[in-house]
Order: sequence, then C-alpha cells, then structure tokens
Amino acid sequence: MAIKVIHDPLVFQQHMLALRMEGQTVGFVPTMGALHDGHLSLFHRAREENDVVAVSIFVNPTQFGPNEDLSRYPRDPEGDLAKAEALGVDVVFMPTPEAMYPPGFQTFVEVTELQKPLCGAFRPGHFRGVATVVTKLLLLAFPTRAYFGRKDFQQWRLIERMVRDLAIPTAIVSMPIIREEDGLAMSSRNRYLSPEERRSALALYRGLLRARELFEAGETRAEVWVREVRKVLEETPGVRGIDYVEVRDGVTLEPVETVGRGSLVALAAHVGPARLIDNWWVGMDTLDLVPGYNIPPFPWSEP
Amino acid sequence: MAIKVIHDPLVFQQHMLALRMEGQTVGFVPTMGALHDGHLSLFHRAREENDVVAVSIFVNPTQFGPNEDLSRYPRDPEGDLAKAEALGVDVVFMPTPEAMYPPGFQTFVEVTELQKPLCGAFRPGHFRGVATVVTKLLLLAFPTRAYFGRKDFQQWRLIERMVRDLAIPTAIVSMPIIREEDGLAMSSRNRYLSPEERRSALALYRGLLRARELFEAGETRAEVWVREVRKVLEETPGVRGIDYVEVRDGVTLEPVETVGRGSLVALAAHVGPARLIDNWWVGMDTLDLVPGYNIPPFPWSEP
Repeated sequence: MAIKVIHDPLVFQQHMLALRMEGQTVGFVPTMGALHDGHLSLFHRAREENDVVAVSIFVNPTQFGPNEDLSRYPRDPEGDLAKAEALGVDVVFMPTPEAMYPPGFQTFVEVTELQKPLCGAFRPGHFRGVATVVTKLLLLAFPTRAYFGRKDFQQWRLIERMVRDLAIPTAIVSMPIIREEDGLAMSSRNRYLSPEERRSALALYRGLLRARELFEAGETRAEVWVREVRKVLEETPGVRGIDYVEVRDGVTLEPVETVGRGSLVALAAHVGPARLIDNWWVGMDTLDLVPGYNIPPFPWSEP
Repeated sequence: MAIKVIHDPLVFQQHMLALRMEGQTVGFVPTMGALHDGHLSLFHRAREENDVVAVSIFVNPTQFGPNEDLSRYPRDPEGDLAKAEALGVDVVFMPTPEAMYPPGFQTFVEVTELQKPLCGAFRPGHFRGVATVVTKLLLLAFPTRAYFGRKDFQQWRLIERMVRDLAIPTAIVSMPIIREEDGLAMSSRNRYLSPEERRSALALYRGLLRARELFEAGETRAEVWVREVRKVLEETPGVRGIDYVEVRDGVTLEPVETVGRGSLVALAAHVGPARLIDNWWVGMDTLDLVPGYNIPPFPWSEP
C-alpha cells in the first residue's frame, strides 16, 4: 500500500476523521522534516501502537524568531518521504505556510508559564508558535496518540499541559533522545556544523555526563550542578556562547535548589552557526550509548 | 427520553465523541445560563438541524474582569434545565470552574485583532477568556454545528475566525438578536435593571432605530451615524455612561468611514448597575418588532 501524501489541510482532516469514524486508531508524529533517527524512533513506536500512522512535515514559520534560521532550515522532502515509507507510515501531511496561515490568520495559543523559562527566555514567541501549530495539527490529524521526542523536553511538557488544559482528545507519548555514536544528540541542525564544530558540539553531551557523575556521587545542590556543567562548556573551544545551563523540576520546569531523580538538567549553546540544545531527565533516561536503545542500529534501521 | 445532565468534562467528551462515532450529528449551544428567549432561539434551531442537541451552562470566570459582575451574574439552574428540556435538548453540560480550570491550568487562546476593538477595548482579557473557554467547550462537545447569537456580534465574528484558524471541525451558525416587545435586546443582565432603569435602557434600541433612519435616508458617513446615535444615548436620562458607539466593517470589525449594507453599528452603555450592549447588522437584520421572528411568541414558546 503506497504512502499517501496530502497537502491540503482540510483534505487531510477529512481523511483522518474518516479513519477515526471507521474505528481505527491513529498515531501522529508532527515534524519539521530533515528526518533523522530521532524522528524515526517516533515513527517506529507509532507504528507499533496504532492502526494508522500519520506524519506531518512542516517547517513552521511562527516558531522562528526574525533572526533565526527559518530560511536555511534543512529541507529534504524526497529523502523524508523515503524514510517515512520505509517505516510504514501511511499518511504524510505536507502543507504550505499559506495553507496553514491563510490571510487574516490571527489565532494563537499560549501556555503562559511553561513557555517562559529555558528556551522560552531566549526565543521570544517560539513556544507560542509551537503551541499554535501543534494545536492546529492535532485538530487536523485528530490522532489517538501523538509522539514527541524528549530532545525538546520543554516542548513536550508544554504540549502535554496544553492538551490537558484544552481537552484535546489525544494521548501525548514522549520518547528518549537518540544520539550519534559519540553522544551528540541527533538534530536536524547538526547539518549546519563543520567537522571541527561537530567536535566542539560534543561539549553538550560531556556536560551531561558530568551531571551524571554528580548524580552518582550523591551531589544534590543545583548550584553545584550548574557550575560544573557550565565549566565543561566554557572549557571547550568552539562553544561560542551559552544560552543557559539549568536544573529544573522535570514536570513544572520550575527552578529547584535540590536535584534528584526526575529533575531536568538542560542546556543550550551556540557552536558555529548552530544553536544546539540537549538535556538529561535525571535518573529517568540513560546517557549510556546503547545500540538499539539510543544510538543506531535500531530495529527500524534494518532492511 | 429524559434530559441528560453531565458535570464532568471528560465524561461529557466521551459521551459526545461516542455519539459522533455512531454517525449522529450534534448541535451545541454554549451558554452562561439564566436562559432567555435569545438562548431558546438557538436551541430551537439546533433542534431543527441536528440529531442530538447539547447545551453547556457555565458562567466562565476567565471572561470577567476583576471589577465586573461575575459574583452577581444571575444563576437559575433549575429554571434553565426546565427550559432546555422543553426545547428538546438532549444533553446539558454543567461543569464547575474547578473542573474546567484545574490547578496548573495555563493555556489561553487569543484572536489578536478581533479581540481588540469595541468591547475588547473596555473589557481587557474578556475575549481571551471567551476564546479559551469556547475552544475547550468545542473540543469537549465536538459538535457538527455550534450556535451563537448576534447580540454578541464581536464574539460571533471572533469565534468564527478562531474556529477557521485552528481548524476546529465545527460549523459556526449565528442567529439574530431576540428583543422584548418594546425593543430591548434580551440579555441575562436585564435582570439587574429597576423599572425606571428598564425604561432608560430602551435608549440603545432607539439609537439603532435612528441609525436605520439614516440608512433609509441614504446617509453613508460613519461620523454622522456615530454622532446621531450617540445623541440619542446622551439625551436619555439614566444612561450613566457610554463605552462606545461605533460603525465598523461587519466581517473584520475594522473601522469604516462609509456605512453600507453589511456594516455593523454597535453600542455599549451603562444603565444603573448594568453594562448593556446592542447592535444592528446594517441592512442584514431587521430592527422591526415582528412576533415570531425577533420577539415572542416563538414556535418554541408554544406548548
């Protein structure tokens, strides 16, 4: 059965509602394309849990700031479609910005507290754009379950909260960060890095490994974690600037003074032309590089 | 078949989704209770057009400002239920504020342009509260069609825009203002008026009749309309203050200099303890007092 590609939002909605009316369960993965194994892990899980798998590929302009990388964000529709098809995705929704935001569009969703800290403090309007487009995508796809990667941990918690607050009838499922063999968190933005920058970028992962050492040593003072992790970034040549290194509650994202299992240590830094983020959900996710779990090869990479 | 009353949001959502999955069409009327013939005209239309009719009764705290009338807003759940039952309503959803806004609630919907003028300029946050609760109610009720009165003209246009922008799969239907026999637009807030204030309140309707005279005389200058309608309000003892008298585009609610068919003339004024609003959709709605059309008796008033 060939993969179905739909561009028109209302055609997509009709198609998805009809599937639900037939009693089928739907798993949905919203993406910005330039797919990597992080995305594919979500497709794989969605395929396991649902009758139908739908994916959206949409580089959403409203979540980019005026000086951000919207225009150079990597795009690879043909490669993306091949990957989606290989993973057993049934429907790919690829709208244009004009179709998602027609003239006169003026409705926005805000998650007032969860949008503030961390990336929200450095990317004004970013999470408003995310909340708005994800609301619209969920109402178009009307899925039983929607899948998000914990690489964007704040995004996941914000969407989880939004879906509950607005009573969107979709279960939100999150999946762990997928890493390269050396530990770099997979990201479409890694494509911006030169080989030298690629080496500098590993500082983020090393910072998290330092956090894990502190955790294993029983250190619970957030200020010590922040200082020690920052030091790893600061000592790495090629890390141009640190947006934040923070330890927060893993659910509310409020600041904590005492770190423990379930806390979040999150960081954002600039390397070359790329703004990179990474995080560790303390004690909940592994930072070990375990093939088949969080680095390739995966079940979905096999022929 | 007895009317079904549901208090819990997720029980209501499950019930409504199950009806849609059975292939039934659903008409939904969100209200704040204290039902009058304006509401009942919506119930009647919903009953004519759908297999199932659902009504919500919820005095939504997030659309009231801190100095507004939330605490004294009229409440009459028993009378409301009797009226709903008499009109053939199948399901009444009556949640508590705590159920709609549980601890940690923080998601809000804004319609950035349509929320600004007219009542939006005098009631900061009002339309954010409206947009948020209506989004949530529509996602809970998941109706085929939802019904709104044109008494709240700006609210109708804002919800229409929001539903389109977010792709909420519901058709928005609006219905004309229902008036008392002397022309006062029906409103739950009319209950605040003493007999003397009740007479002063008629100034709003007289102002609109003056607008209609200008329309019939071929006057098209918005500034003349505003001046003439204001004069009617200003000359009426008991009209304490005028929030606005405005002529705007009937779709975008942007200011117009030239009035014509399809424009909106809208006014808001304080009479005694009540803030009253009224409007005329120029040439589209009648201001005539026609029994069976916009004053009682209605088909739905008969035994």
